Amino acid sequence: MNLNDRTKPRKPRVLLPSSSSSETLTPVPKMARKSILKSTVATVLCVFGLYGLSTTFFNPINPYHSRLDLSLPLDSSSKSLSLLSTDSGENLSKFSRNFGPVKVYMYDLPRKFTYGVIESYAVARGGLEKVPVDDVSSLKYPGHQHSGEWYLFSDLIREDRDGRYVVRVSDPEEADLFYVSFFSSLSLVVNPIRPANGEGAGTGYSDEEMQESLMEWLEQQEYWKRNNGRDHVFICQDPNALHLIVDRVKNGVLLVSDFGRLRSDTASLVKDVILPYAHRIKSYSGKIGVENRKSLLFFMGNRYRKEGGKIRDLLFQILEQEEDVIIKHGAQSRESRRMASQGMHSSKFCLHPAGDTPSACRLFDAIVSLCVPVIVSDQIELPFEDVIDYRKIAIFVDSASAVKPGFLVKNLRKITRERILEYQREMQEVTRYFEFEDTNGTVSEIWRQVSMKLPLIKLMINRDKRLVKREMTEPDCSCLCSNQSEIRTFL
Amino acid sequence: MNLNDRTKPRKPRVLLPSSSSSETLTPVPKMARKSILKSTVATVLCVFGLYGLSTTFFNPINPYHSRLDLSLPLDSSSKSLSLLSTDSGENLSKFSRNFGPVKVYMYDLPRKFTYGVIESYAVARGGLEKVPVDDVSSLKYPGHQHSGEWYLFSDLIREDRDGRYVVRVSDPEEADLFYVSFFSSLSLVVNPIRPANGEGAGTGYSDEEMQESLMEWLEQQEYWKRNNGRDHVFICQDPNALHLIVDRVKNGVLLVSDFGRLRSDTASLVKDVILPYAHRIKSYSGKIGVENRKSLLFFMGNRYRKEGGKIRDLLFQILEQEEDVIIKHGAQSRESRRMASQGMHSSKFCLHPAGDTPSACRLFDAIVSLCVPVIVSDQIELPFEDVIDYRKIAIFVDSASAVKPGFLVKNLRKITRERILEYQREMQEVTRYFEFEDTNGTVSEIWRQVSMKLPLIKLMINRDKRLVKREMTEPDCSCLCSNQSEIRTFL
Repeated sequence: MNLNDRTKPRKPRVLLPSSSSSETLTPVPKMARKSILKSTVATVLCVFGLYGLSTTFFNPINPYHSRLDLSLPLDSSSKSLSLLSTDSGENLSKFSRNFGPVKVYMYDLPRKFTYGVIESYAVARGGLEKVPVDDVSSLKYPGHQHSGEWYLFSDLIREDRDGRYVVRVSDPEEADLFYVSFFSSLSLVVNPIRPANGEGAGTGYSDEEMQESLMEWLEQQEYWKRNNGRDHVFICQDPNALHLIVDRVKNGVLLVSDFGRLRSDTASLVKDVILPYAHRIKSYSGKIGVENRKSLLFFMGNRYRKEGGKIRDLLFQILEQEEDVIIKHGAQSRESRRMASQGMHSSKFCLHPAGDTPSACRLFDAIVSLCVPVIVSDQIELPFEDVIDYRKIAIFVDSASAVKPGFLVKNLRKITRERILEYQREMQEVTRYFEFEDTNGTVSEIWRQVSMKLPLIKLMINRDKRLVKREMTEPDCSCLCSNQSEIRTFL
Repeated sequence: MNLNDRTKPRKPRVLLPSSSSSETLTPVPKMARKSILKSTVATVLCVFGLYGLSTTFFNPINPYHSRLDLSLPLDSSSKSLSLLSTDSGENLSKFSRNFGPVKVYMYDLPRKFTYGVIESYAVARGGLEKVPVDDVSSLKYPGHQHSGEWYLFSDLIREDRDGRYVVRVSDPEEADLFYVSFFSSLSLVVNPIRPANGEGAGTGYSDEEMQESLMEWLEQQEYWKRNNGRDHVFICQDPNALHLIVDRVKNGVLLVSDFGRLRSDTASLVKDVILPYAHRIKSYSGKIGVENRKSLLFFMGNRYRKEGGKIRDLLFQILEQEEDVIIKHGAQSRESRRMASQGMHSSKFCLHPAGDTPSACRLFDAIVSLCVPVIVSDQIELPFEDVIDYRKIAIFVDSASAVKPGFLVKNLRKITRERILEYQREMQEVTRYFEFEDTNGTVSEIWRQVSMKLPLIKLMINRDKRLVKREMTEPDCSCLCSNQSEIRTFL
């Protein structure tokens, strides 16, 4: 039996040549979309903007490789420290605190896969004339929802990282896991426009060539070949990141936003880690309460999405006439982000419908706004679900119920002030998980999640190598299945 | 979609009404077998014998419940301690040593599910007249290959247990996991003969009634219902143990010997833990070397087995004429166990063919004998495979190659003295994992393995409860698949 037979998908989820699920406040014209590259560039382009003034700078380094020592001004506020020391209930379990450090080797990737991507992105927007820059500290990673790749890279090269869950080792022989730090989500959107030939707008940059080049580079690495990549970690937060090679790196741990475009034999809850998006609006700094939250329900975003996101138009139709509901087809801009912040900070509930894929950054915007998320996305997967019980901070409504006229608002209005405060209190307990710059925040938790994959990775590495040739009619898979009778709604 | 739709097996493994896979040196007559109970009793009966003189005694306790404080004279020899402190290479990884304790609550089961099983077993053999005994210290758990259930129970009730990987808690509210200590493997063989009506030979004991009774008891427990059993741990080492109710407790962590008779939606490497059998022959205490190992290959056991075990007869045919091979159709007795010890201690290689199920105690007998196992069992799963690389201590041969005339002996003879010493050295490093009485041995490792299931258990508990009703055509499963091109043989 050959490789392909044994890994045939049981529950196919097709990698669709469709637009990115990247959440955007921009109207995207409905039109035929010819390729993943084209459409992704078109859509994600709208999402991006450089952060106003970033405090994140780099130190000079070997211009051809991305390894360097760097101190990031990460937030080490007393808030995060106190959360660490007081153990916020079940959210920071004894299990995770006792979890020992796993040794990670970060590949010294050719520069083009890290800083080079940032440079190409800047060049394509006229922000840089000469590349490579002599001083990488002049480069800024553009702020956007898929910036996890930047935070993990930055974390591993920090000199003062504490390494609670993973320690970085410089000798690959010592490593338990290998981190491949290619900025795959940024690479996808380097080219700002949709050119006719599918290549960069005169920039000469091609994400697909980058992916192929990464693959070629990896295949020359001794440690890649050693365990067929099972002990390698890749980040591909944009649903189309690494799309060309994901089937060739699927043995590894994939850090993803959801499984919307990944087949079940490519990615799974057992093997991979669900990452939150970086929130795009300001965290709410006020106290819990409903007095300043006059709106019942808030949503701002693109009305027209594909796949599961088709529900958005239906939700608009039934919600836009409701008096205390704000539902807007928004466009991305500094102004609209300000409006979204204001809306989320002054509403009791924030709608989170599926986009082109089940997840979106809006959920995390809502959580840091203490605006109770109302999730209408039947296939959604949620980050860090072993330590976060999302029923405590969000309301789940199945799509079929949500689109019944009157259903949503009628039921949301029934929810008492006390119950809302309870949701808000619970949200406060977990906001740190969604703050990438918190010392005890997202990055730390991602490494903990990655660490916990190690026993099964080691088991599978050992087992793969001693398996003998067998006659099998099905793939040899170990599974964990959901077998609850599901709820239809939150009531 | 109902429960049954969503959990339909992808790779059916049928729970066959066949004989137990329990390894035995007894000739079992080939005959029609009518029920799991009958055949299991018949086969496993032959395996059992009381240990000569056991040092394992109990203290008096509430006669109706099995909770008690007890000190077991477990082996805390310098050998095991030195292995702990020196960290035997990758076999005791940094990961596992740093793994924090998980809180386990052991149910205070009605006495009949623990000491009561031992009593019934003794009564059925004329060893006890009055039950329940006043003093449980007069009871002895009969020694046999499935005694893991006894060791785990004994470990949790020890006063001086160190709790490196799990700590026992007395308040279920604090617990991460719930241990159900029913002696399911012993229960299966309480009745020593095969009666006509499928029930006990006048003992009134029925394993199936016990299983149903356990289920009834569990279903009244608040913590069983709370998470639908996902955080419950069951031991069912005999392939037929819990056969009647295993589909009702499959959400939990199952401690099993292999997956031979469990469907892939009931048990998996991801959810469950593979346990070693307790070895039945004496550990080899000598040094490594081949000088005193004149035989090339040794096997003693039942020639006729079902399923994958059919290969045994073929192996007998091609091996019994070889001069330096000892292959015997043995009968269980004190004498034959002595002969098996002698044979394994004086052979270079020990054959481990599949039995009725893929695993058997013979593998662990071979390891503690420093006799290099030659595994001919294509579907075998191996205990603790994240920390033990079995290629270093055993030779794997696919069934198709193994039965080619001349193949096995020709290739085994080619293996150099140096290579055999290497195998033996590696075996020495891992024997502690197969010593149930070693403080740092099997029991400790089982708890470590159980601990590592916790993050996925917690994730699935949280996720199950927030899932909304979805239209699905396939079960909602997360899988880890093998996708190596397999080896055909060891050469």
